[in-house]
Amino acid sequence: MSVSQTLTVDLGDQRSYPIFVGQKLLENPDCLVPYIVGKQVCIVTNDTVADLYLKSVESLLADYQVNTVVLPDGESHKSLETVNFIYDCLLENKHNRTTTLVALGGGVVGDMAGYAAATYQRGVNFIQIPTTLLSQVDSSVGGKTGVNHPLGKNMIGAFHQPQCVIIDTDVLQTLPPRELSAGMAEVIKYGLICDKPFYQWIEEHIAGLMSLDEALLVEAIARSCQNKADVVAQDEREAGLRAILNLGHTFGHAIETAQGYGVWLHGEAVAAGMLAALELSSLMGDIPHQEVERLRQLLNNANLPTVLPANMTGEQFLQLMALDKKVLDGRLRLVLVKAIGEAVVTEAASQDQVLQAIANCS
Amino acid sequence: MSVSQTLTVDLGDQRSYPIFVGQKLLENPDCLVPYIVGKQVCIVTNDTVADLYLKSVESLLADYQVNTVVLPDGESHKSLETVNFIYDCLLENKHNRTTTLVALGGGVVGDMAGYAAATYQRGVNFIQIPTTLLSQVDSSVGGKTGVNHPLGKNMIGAFHQPQCVIIDTDVLQTLPPRELSAGMAEVIKYGLICDKPFYQWIEEHIAGLMSLDEALLVEAIARSCQNKADVVAQDEREAGLRAILNLGHTFGHAIETAQGYGVWLHGEAVAAGMLAALELSSLMGDIPHQEVERLRQLLNNANLPTVLPANMTGEQFLQLMALDKKVLDGRLRLVLVKAIGEAVVTEAASQDQVLQAIANCS
Repeated sequence: MSVSQTLTVDLGDQRSYPIFVGQKLLENPDCLVPYIVGKQVCIVTNDTVADLYLKSVESLLADYQVNTVVLPDGESHKSLETVNFIYDCLLENKHNRTTTLVALGGGVVGDMAGYAAATYQRGVNFIQIPTTLLSQVDSSVGGKTGVNHPLGKNMIGAFHQPQCVIIDTDVLQTLPPRELSAGMAEVIKYGLICDKPFYQWIEEHIAGLMSLDEALLVEAIARSCQNKADVVAQDEREAGLRAILNLGHTFGHAIETAQGYGVWLHGEAVAAGMLAALELSSLMGDIPHQEVERLRQLLNNANLPTVLPANMTGEQFLQLMALDKKVLDGRLRLVLVKAIGEAVVTEAASQDQVLQAIANCS
Repeated sequence: MSVSQTLTVDLGDQRSYPIFVGQKLLENPDCLVPYIVGKQVCIVTNDTVADLYLKSVESLLADYQVNTVVLPDGESHKSLETVNFIYDCLLENKHNRTTTLVALGGGVVGDMAGYAAATYQRGVNFIQIPTTLLSQVDSSVGGKTGVNHPLGKNMIGAFHQPQCVIIDTDVLQTLPPRELSAGMAEVIKYGLICDKPFYQWIEEHIAGLMSLDEALLVEAIARSCQNKADVVAQDEREAGLRAILNLGHTFGHAIETAQGYGVWLHGEAVAAGMLAALELSSLMGDIPHQEVERLRQLLNNANLPTVLPANMTGEQFLQLMALDKKVLDGRLRLVLVKAIGEAVVTEAASQDQVLQAIANCS
């Protein structure tokens, strides 16, 4: 028996799209083929994922002109130079405006393939097949694409929505355990920011999720995507509400920058950052301190870090957090929680309170 | 006395914007300052235009953080490498998501600044101050931005609408005469494709237009922009009708490619291309041949070419035209006219008819 769910991301008539979540979807042409409009497909993947899943996807596309770009694996390659390899492949093989780019891989592959799709001939079709838990619950919804610039992460990009997203939970069986945990941090985040019953459900099922129970994974991924879709539908261009999706991210980005990208995985930094954000919410009197301990326990059960890096001072955090994109006119805006399942964006925290929260989590 | 007109490009609530056309607008803060949202501005221009008009624009922006990128002049610099200079300037000077890019220059500057605005931090505000007749009547409307790739023109790009467009007709006094003619080719095109009364008006006033009568220029530019806006409003993403804006362009692109970019100006190639398109329309029985002669006379009066390049064969035209973006599944689609002021997109012309039309214009 296999379990599957389909959700629809509702962006109005023309750009709404389905997310398929389930087992054995990479063997199923019905999730992929009906969403290809023209006769040309360009698969973008990386060398790790290509070895595991490229043949499965190619075998569904025997009736199309298929060209494949295999990128080097890793965030350090998320650059305009690497996107150029995709443009070169498209132009050398005469892909026209009806072509479809298929992203087969994690967040880096999806961000770059999506950016290439947003900008090739001013926009072509795009299908995502995310192969990490993080990209399944994060990049599947929201339409964010982009690359890094030497002077800043994700500084070059575009909003571009896919035709469909195919999430095959079987691929998680080959995912390194540390990356499974990192993705679980974002799953937990959805509970914290907008879905208290889901948060309780994750607490109850964290052992089964970590041991890759497929039915539980389908449920956790589908509900995470649904939560993100609900938030994004209310704020597609990130004018306001959507910022709550960044719970833990301002602290987390500071950690990633200070340690050097890749030393802490993004989800690990977000986990520690969420704990700091809840500590700060507690200091401001919005939640009882036992909620901080409750999150610490859950992160522990997901094999995620529960202390900030020992080599960082509070001052260093403040300096790095001031560079965050959410800083408007020099004021530090943070995502905090008023209660479990209810996040807010606020400038109310004083510098002293932020420093105290960091100290309490160090 | 100065003459001015304001039109509104209607794209629905949030993205509609005004086009100001008139004299002395570069001295008038009211066209520029109200359309800047944040406190940061980045002016993108080229070395030729900077010498003439940069100080005027900067003097209107004393209350803002202003950084300026001066690009090398010319189509050969319309590349991702050059766009990177704009990203570098924005990041080095810590421009945030509320920044505004101001494009001060011709089509190349507008296309690159617009593309940088479309992709910097997934999209920031953008104001156009076009300084050539061609960019005033062509790039002001439609939201097309982009750069060339070594394997194709305008292959990388995005749709991105400006906050406003400021067209100061005084700048045309410093425009080289050949570029004035090239821009006039596009003005004539609007009459041919969708506005017969305007076509007759241009015929009557071509001498005054070519001698830079400001009131006539304001009228010609405003009416050209209005015509383009009407077409684009019906087809923002270039699914169908918008293709009529390419009258003469499939022939014209073949000329530009064969001669090497810059040997014929774009508008010159379009002028000869429009004549070939009308010749073909006449061969197909849609218009009397006297309309071809009438256009030849008008192009002559605008100092535009009226014969195709002597060094090109019909076969060479066919080969190059087959590379056009409008070719779907190998069939050559062309923009022709059913009557003056009424263009159509059609695949009805046979290869023999196309060759005959080319021969008649050579």
